[in-house]
Amino acid sequence: MAYKTGDMVRVSIDNENYEGIVMPSSSEKVLALKLKNGYNLNFEITKDVKVKVIAEAKPEKKLEIKVPKSDLPSVTLVSTGGTITSKVDYKTGAVFPLEKPEELILSIPELVDTVNIKKITQPFAVLSEDMTPAEWSIIAKEVADALNSKDTGVIVTHGTDTLHFTASALSFMLQNLSKPVALVGGQRSSDRGSFDGALNLIAAGHYVKSNIAEVAVVMHGEEADTFCFANRGTKTRKFHTTRRDTFRPINELPLAKISKEGKIEILNKNFKARTNNKVTVNTDFERKIALVKYYPGASPEIIDYYLDKKYKGLIIEATGLGHVSTQSLNKKDSWLPAIQEAVKKKMFIGFAPQCIYGTLDPFVYANARILQEAGVTYLGDMLPDTAYVKLGCMIPRAGSREELIKLMTTNIAGELNNKIPAQAFLY
Amino acid sequence: MAYKTGDMVRVSIDNENYEGIVMPSSSEKVLALKLKNGYNLNFEITKDVKVKVIAEAKPEKKLEIKVPKSDLPSVTLVSTGGTITSKVDYKTGAVFPLEKPEELILSIPELVDTVNIKKITQPFAVLSEDMTPAEWSIIAKEVADALNSKDTGVIVTHGTDTLHFTASALSFMLQNLSKPVALVGGQRSSDRGSFDGALNLIAAGHYVKSNIAEVAVVMHGEEADTFCFANRGTKTRKFHTTRRDTFRPINELPLAKISKEGKIEILNKNFKARTNNKVTVNTDFERKIALVKYYPGASPEIIDYYLDKKYKGLIIEATGLGHVSTQSLNKKDSWLPAIQEAVKKKMFIGFAPQCIYGTLDPFVYANARILQEAGVTYLGDMLPDTAYVKLGCMIPRAGSREELIKLMTTNIAGELNNKIPAQAFLY
Repeated sequence: MAYKTGDMVRVSIDNENYEGIVMPSSSEKVLALKLKNGYNLNFEITKDVKVKVIAEAKPEKKLEIKVPKSDLPSVTLVSTGGTITSKVDYKTGAVFPLEKPEELILSIPELVDTVNIKKITQPFAVLSEDMTPAEWSIIAKEVADALNSKDTGVIVTHGTDTLHFTASALSFMLQNLSKPVALVGGQRSSDRGSFDGALNLIAAGHYVKSNIAEVAVVMHGEEADTFCFANRGTKTRKFHTTRRDTFRPINELPLAKISKEGKIEILNKNFKARTNNKVTVNTDFERKIALVKYYPGASPEIIDYYLDKKYKGLIIEATGLGHVSTQSLNKKDSWLPAIQEAVKKKMFIGFAPQCIYGTLDPFVYANARILQEAGVTYLGDMLPDTAYVKLGCMIPRAGSREELIKLMTTNIAGELNNKIPAQAFLY
Repeated sequence: MAYKTGDMVRVSIDNENYEGIVMPSSSEKVLALKLKNGYNLNFEITKDVKVKVIAEAKPEKKLEIKVPKSDLPSVTLVSTGGTITSKVDYKTGAVFPLEKPEELILSIPELVDTVNIKKITQPFAVLSEDMTPAEWSIIAKEVADALNSKDTGVIVTHGTDTLHFTASALSFMLQNLSKPVALVGGQRSSDRGSFDGALNLIAAGHYVKSNIAEVAVVMHGEEADTFCFANRGTKTRKFHTTRRDTFRPINELPLAKISKEGKIEILNKNFKARTNNKVTVNTDFERKIALVKYYPGASPEIIDYYLDKKYKGLIIEATGLGHVSTQSLNKKDSWLPAIQEAVKKKMFIGFAPQCIYGTLDPFVYANARILQEAGVTYLGDMLPDTAYVKLGCMIPRAGSREELIKLMTTNIAGELNNKIPAQAFLY
């Protein structure tokens, strides 16, 4: 029964078996076990309880901090929280942020051999589900400052849950972007054998030295620890709750495939190249906007609610080519009157595809023409999440309704793509 | 300048070229052209206007109605509207429903050679974006009646936009399902060369003769006109605005791959087999429920709104493993207090994955544990759209909050899947 905290053990009582990791216990007579499903179980140690060690706890690896190499191109790294800079607390089983993320980051030898991490800033540490437009603004300002220094690019570490929203926000808040910006997350915390953050950071180091002056999400390209994709910030989303290759490109190929060794294969030639422009930053964001999904049975009263609240715009996740109910058999189910009323009251109503892949087209079905005539702005193949972020950024910039519609339907940061390659579907 | 209505022509004026289809025109001196983008242009015919025919109009094929073969297994076909039973109106360019869908259906020889289409009913003809739970109930009753006759199965034709919602509704409304039910749509109308409805209907004919007693969406498996997939009604969604292979399986493989010739390859052995049970139908649906997406910056006041409206339940599309803000830097952005209040007032709050693929897990991060303790029900890998439909069906069936939670977290129609095969991602 020789086991210690952190060992993976199998506990047998009668004919039941339980596998899990030994936790610190309040008493020597109690074995506290963290099961794989996350539950904790406590066993009183009696002679009927058999414990077999399946795998011994790995000794906690002392992080070996490397000194950044000043002859390499310099980068600033902005650490904002999330799993990539977190550790599991074996007492509660919960993941909590590292106090000093720089220790982890500067312990990855291949990263320190790729770029000179001149500066690591940590404006705050929040999990990405707690991010709001206020944090986007802070990140955007830090990134702009660094880009206007001698840095070759900027790396931002961030939780994965809402990473693509922040990527979109930076894409619109940073203007005249002239250098690469890599957003990097982790699907596994740093103390797990399957930690993906190291490869993601190394690939991000290679990305920010590239010629691609775009905001990109740099994460695993497949489940194995082999290569990363740089996906354009406005054209990606989290697609799987747990897989390491969770970020996929939508309606286009990834900008690049990046190997651990720094081989960069351009997959999408349609990117903005590096320039010497000064980056400007506009972090104004209109909070009185919302993202609303249409579905059968959804009451159109939701639009009245946002009108009452004096919201300035809605992005509606419309079905198929851009539809909501206009001719339902029971008139009260139709969204058309509420949309007409909203437009009359100067609310911006933009439609984006709830199908995720493909583009909207108001010219195929009569329903959509009616909606377009009612004043709905069709946003092509813009992802709903991207459209929401773009709307928040564009309302403060537009002097009139016409200008807002123009801004929303004009490509600014790769968010609109007229030529969708067939192989981009489910890439 | 010899052209006729329906011809594809190139019109040249000065140095401008316009390509499109010749529409019926109000005057011989005017050429009305439908451009590819759907716009109509009128040209006054002068000597400066050159018209070149690129492709002649195809003569409209007279539909050859076949007589159903009474020695084949009988099926009922329920026609509900949508593109599959529609035609383009060349005057307006809009797609409109066929007056007699049975003519189209009975003109597909391979379908009539597969099953005896004993009866075609048309309870209504609505585009699928106009469907509501009221129509789901009508369809469910018609299907149940047919299933309890001598029919081998039932085929339902339906628009594609919200087809997977109806598929989910039938999955929960039909109880003790003992025979196959195929839902079939079309991404192209019947007068187009790329009409996909024929193959989809033929594959549906083969499906309803199979041993799979489940509600399935039977549509193209790839863009080419080669084979169809039967995807489980509770585990699929429309994933592309225009592609013919738009319905994909989520978190599982398709139930079956079906060739035009009727070869059925079972891809997912985990299905309910055909029995002799009598099918019962329960069409009660609670309309005071909503599907709400969480995103950064979303105001928690939306929950208060639904509380004020006396809604009985919400399905929240949560980020990652099942998160919404609980510890945002600005407290008013946190959704936790509103959720606690809602639970206190007996509202059901269910979380489903906005990532689409993968399953929720409240045991990984502290935030999720807090939410679970607050009374949130985690719905595993249930699709948000499916969870919404299930909630509407389950509220009238549950005698208590505990029973509702039990029903929502118990697998009823394949909506919950504990063992997700790796190859199901982006299948």
